[in-house]
Amino acid sequence: MKNIRGIVFDLYGTLFDVHSVAAACDACHPGRGREISVMWRQKQLEYTWLRSLMADYVDFEQATRDALVFTSRQLQLSLDEAARSALCNEYLKIKPYPEVPEALARLQAMGLPLAILSNGSVNSIRSVVAASGLVLRFKHLISADDAQIFKPHGSVYTLAEQQLSCDRSELLFVSSNAWDASGARHFGYPVCWINRAGNAFDELGQSPDHVVQGLDELADWLAAQQITSGS
Amino acid sequence: MKNIRGIVFDLYGTLFDVHSVAAACDACHPGRGREISVMWRQKQLEYTWLRSLMADYVDFEQATRDALVFTSRQLQLSLDEAARSALCNEYLKIKPYPEVPEALARLQAMGLPLAILSNGSVNSIRSVVAASGLVLRFKHLISADDAQIFKPHGSVYTLAEQQLSCDRSELLFVSSNAWDASGARHFGYPVCWINRAGNAFDELGQSPDHVVQGLDELADWLAAQQITSGS
Repeated sequence: MKNIRGIVFDLYGTLFDVHSVAAACDACHPGRGREISVMWRQKQLEYTWLRSLMADYVDFEQATRDALVFTSRQLQLSLDEAARSALCNEYLKIKPYPEVPEALARLQAMGLPLAILSNGSVNSIRSVVAASGLVLRFKHLISADDAQIFKPHGSVYTLAEQQLSCDRSELLFVSSNAWDASGARHFGYPVCWINRAGNAFDELGQSPDHVVQGLDELADWLAAQQITSGS
Repeated sequence: MKNIRGIVFDLYGTLFDVHSVAAACDACHPGRGREISVMWRQKQLEYTWLRSLMADYVDFEQATRDALVFTSRQLQLSLDEAARSALCNEYLKIKPYPEVPEALARLQAMGLPLAILSNGSVNSIRSVVAASGLVLRFKHLISADDAQIFKPHGSVYTLAEQQLSCDRSELLFVSSNAWDASGARHFGYPVCWINRAGNAFDELGQSPDHVVQGLDELADWLAAQQITSGS
């Protein structure tokens, strides 16, 4: 994997922790925060896939709001319009995983262009990255919104090779979501799966090229391979 | 809804209980049966959606087997090849919900053609229906395999209007899966959602035309409207 010319990251669950919102959920419904956050995330994913298959696209912020509405109804928890908006706003301020800021700085110092390719809307991606103070790390912020469909559809994965003017074989795709890593691998990217939680990899006919437990470990691995922009 | 000319049913979770397999799962891993069955079903659904979006179709039996492999690995439960095959075979013998046999007989007696439109393979659908002794109730058994993609993609929903030679507006689509009911509604079928469990309906921009708690209630409702083949 010495001929890589850029790194493309997934955002939600990969660089940033979607369960950052659990505390705010817990403030609304004490003791239920994690339960709300887990169902909200699961439904958010499902709605992106289902909307894509139904050919009835809405952007990520709408899918996120819809998933929260479902979650509050399914769990029979009251959530008025103001509370919904406040929680959705928390999704625009989710936090990076602890090792991410320093690891990104190291990766950037290697001279490779770093990009985000996310199902998030342009506004969502920019808001999350800006709130974390990491905006200068990235050369490209790429949204599935440009394809009007969500990952793992190929129309989204191709946006990164187009934006970075590289062949897919030259870009390392990094995701913690096994379904996303599988989609990218099937599309043709070399893939690194960040498996922080010790999960099994999804059985979608694909295997990641490399597996790490955190982004720092990826930086170590690439440094050991002496990957630089000139190599 | 007096001008309907046929009824199209989803199979898994609608007429037949996917958690029929929980007892066999429990026999393999005592005390874990329901947990296995729930994760297996969730991953089975996800794999059908993800494979469809990735344009990397495998049939339902393969997706079911893949989902079981993931589940055993994720839960760190040993499951050798023989046990996997035995459990997958259980999926070919799942049981109808208690009210289903009599309600189907009543619906058939109204003179409307009854059809199944399922993500299952031809073999899966035939096996499940034959094992239940309900094969004579159905005029059409229609598999997503003919479209080489899964619901809620429109290419699957159109198979029923083609097979029954009806316009979509003339067929009542019946599902317990809210995502499937939403997909069918978006496609253009009038939809009845069977909500046995008292769930919230998915927030996918659609609403069912009618909601019942069981298939018997649907038969009551149609009988009250005097829907017959001649009306």
